[in-house]
Amino acid sequence: MKTNAKPGDLVEVHLDRIIYEGVLLESPDSEKGIVLLKLGTGYNLGFNKKDILEIKKIQEVRIKEKKLELKKAPGKPNIAMIITGGTIASSYDSRTGGVHPLTTPEKLFRFYPELFEKVNIIKVEVPFMKFSEEMNPKDWQKIARVSEKLLNDSNVKGIIITHGTDFLHYTSSALSFFLGKLNKPVVLTYSQKSIDRASSDANLNLQCSALAAISDIAEVSIVGHASDEDNYCYAIPGTKARKLHTSRRDAFKTVNDEPYAKISEETIELISKYNLRNNRKIKPDIKFEEKIALVKFYPGQKPDILDYYSKQKYKGIVIEMSGLGHVSSKWIKKIKEICKKGMVVCGVSQCINGRVDGKVYSTGRKLIEAGVIYLEDMLAETAFVKLGWVIGHRKWNVKEKMLENIAGELNNRLEE
Amino acid sequence: MKTNAKPGDLVEVHLDRIIYEGVLLESPDSEKGIVLLKLGTGYNLGFNKKDILEIKKIQEVRIKEKKLELKKAPGKPNIAMIITGGTIASSYDSRTGGVHPLTTPEKLFRFYPELFEKVNIIKVEVPFMKFSEEMNPKDWQKIARVSEKLLNDSNVKGIIITHGTDFLHYTSSALSFFLGKLNKPVVLTYSQKSIDRASSDANLNLQCSALAAISDIAEVSIVGHASDEDNYCYAIPGTKARKLHTSRRDAFKTVNDEPYAKISEETIELISKYNLRNNRKIKPDIKFEEKIALVKFYPGQKPDILDYYSKQKYKGIVIEMSGLGHVSSKWIKKIKEICKKGMVVCGVSQCINGRVDGKVYSTGRKLIEAGVIYLEDMLAETAFVKLGWVIGHRKWNVKEKMLENIAGELNNRLEE
Repeated sequence: MKTNAKPGDLVEVHLDRIIYEGVLLESPDSEKGIVLLKLGTGYNLGFNKKDILEIKKIQEVRIKEKKLELKKAPGKPNIAMIITGGTIASSYDSRTGGVHPLTTPEKLFRFYPELFEKVNIIKVEVPFMKFSEEMNPKDWQKIARVSEKLLNDSNVKGIIITHGTDFLHYTSSALSFFLGKLNKPVVLTYSQKSIDRASSDANLNLQCSALAAISDIAEVSIVGHASDEDNYCYAIPGTKARKLHTSRRDAFKTVNDEPYAKISEETIELISKYNLRNNRKIKPDIKFEEKIALVKFYPGQKPDILDYYSKQKYKGIVIEMSGLGHVSSKWIKKIKEICKKGMVVCGVSQCINGRVDGKVYSTGRKLIEAGVIYLEDMLAETAFVKLGWVIGHRKWNVKEKMLENIAGELNNRLEE
Repeated sequence: MKTNAKPGDLVEVHLDRIIYEGVLLESPDSEKGIVLLKLGTGYNLGFNKKDILEIKKIQEVRIKEKKLELKKAPGKPNIAMIITGGTIASSYDSRTGGVHPLTTPEKLFRFYPELFEKVNIIKVEVPFMKFSEEMNPKDWQKIARVSEKLLNDSNVKGIIITHGTDFLHYTSSALSFFLGKLNKPVVLTYSQKSIDRASSDANLNLQCSALAAISDIAEVSIVGHASDEDNYCYAIPGTKARKLHTSRRDAFKTVNDEPYAKISEETIELISKYNLRNNRKIKPDIKFEEKIALVKFYPGQKPDILDYYSKQKYKGIVIEMSGLGHVSSKWIKKIKEICKKGMVVCGVSQCINGRVDGKVYSTGRKLIEAGVIYLEDMLAETAFVKLGWVIGHRKWNVKEKMLENIAGELNNRLEE
């Protein structure tokens, strides 16, 4: 195998009967006999060196180490960023195949120069770097504590939080409850496609997030693509967002509500009511009871799972029930039992869209009698987060609080 | 309180400051001091007799006991129906507030005369009458056994099965696997709004189901409203359907696939490929392992839940993971353990739309190593049903079968 190509170059790999084009990667030490190629689709292919006739260089890699001028421009509004991980804050090194976190304004500037045309990023906080599936309520609390500092800093006009997509809607719910009525925007954003790919959604999401962060929308919102086109974003209420696609750019949808705004690179079009920017001092309320569970009911499921959580001394459970909020009538007795023992049982719908109503059928009425709190049109994920937060406050009346609309999680605007 | 109105009449109930209009209901024996009124919205109101000044009759109820002529019309195709319960097969008696099942052709004719203009219903089977949340795998087996008889009856051109909406998509999946390659259409249908209400969706759903049942689409499908308008339906593949709204007529959506057809009262417009009507003899394969579970992962969730199912001797578990198919890396060791003990662990996405891919990130690759079978774009509910069916066959290679597209549950047509 002969070649003058080096890692990072665009090459053709010639095999016996087929030619692959892609970027040559550095082979890891453990795989010395293997040549790795990153295809245009973003996937990597591995070849045995002995099968390769030739690696032909098409275009040499040029490594630009742009000199950064990250001066504060006096005309531009100042914002702060909180980086927590996820695809949006990871750059992929085409030479090594490794992933590097973007955790300083300089590094962010290299990938997202357009963002800096709109705003000055005067602070970047990195409480941790995690994939969102590794997060837990303690991480939500950490983000809230970092946010507190920035929200009460009068030099900061708004906050952008970058986050892995997968469980972002849990974090946005947690911040909605923890931070309370806000004084300025808290904007969570993400990317579905790696930022080193031409098709990345990160750039538009960040630019729209910047507009949201300097807007008057003093709410926790998720800002991301409104469609699979790369033209505008929605600002989705933090308690009404759900990831509904594994890979599309418009993974997040507003459920049982409307977005706050439609945002393009240049404009914000307001859609629904929100809390206005103000001078309130922010004091997060981050109490949280971690002994709570989320259970999705399925046909034939035994109610014994409730015993399991009861024995483990869980304090509350959210059940994803049927459409209007039913489970098998075989569950009623057990639910009554655990409610009597002090566990809180909440009912939401696994249909995602619409609302539960226990009063329509007799099974629902019996479940209400047994103690189930029906959470109207609240999303299961939001209900889970809210339940932990409410139970965390020992003196609160749990049922009353769960049914009080605290952060837009219960919505009566879209009644049919 | 004076009145000449009787239950069933349209009345005005005059209170001190307000007048309610609705249909007077018969008060149950237990509530003699109460007057019950069914409002136009379908909701019931109860009044204390002593608060009522007058009940004014607006229109007398006319009880039509239409003489039925249910002769077979020689020109029309013959179909069979299987009634299993749900709103669509329940008529509401406005006089008593009670609900009566429609379990004979005569009773069905009274409510759905248009259905009988299209087809002869030569058989009605009623294996049981249940709300769908009460069903379990044994009920799916019962429906399959009843279907077998009708599918192998050359006088029957197709089958309509009426069913409660809530867990209909589990049943449609089960029948898709149990019945195998079909010889004629098996159409499941439902209604979201009670048939005695002007806004009921049952009539259109049944008429479209009749067209589907006499069509060439020899598949298990769910036929129901395509939008909230009352104009046409979709025939949705049985393994690719999910209830995604609690109350709208178009509660069921096709996920990661296309409908077989768009159907109005008069026409069928074919949309995607299907198995053609034929003369195959049908022999259902209804083996099913009931010791399977469906678990939705949430942030911070302890892997101990896997021990619980392992100790209870469960044979398989479907985990609703993150977008591409991740759980916390704290779960990996435990998953490896239970897989070694012989439990089957499958991964699907809680995003509903899109597909899992364990190969993109290292957590996914470790989960694959630990033994997780990634089920591509399969719906969680379909995966649950398929897993029970596959494990039910002791001699099958579970992984191979789970990844084999048997009834349209794995779809490669819609790759992005």
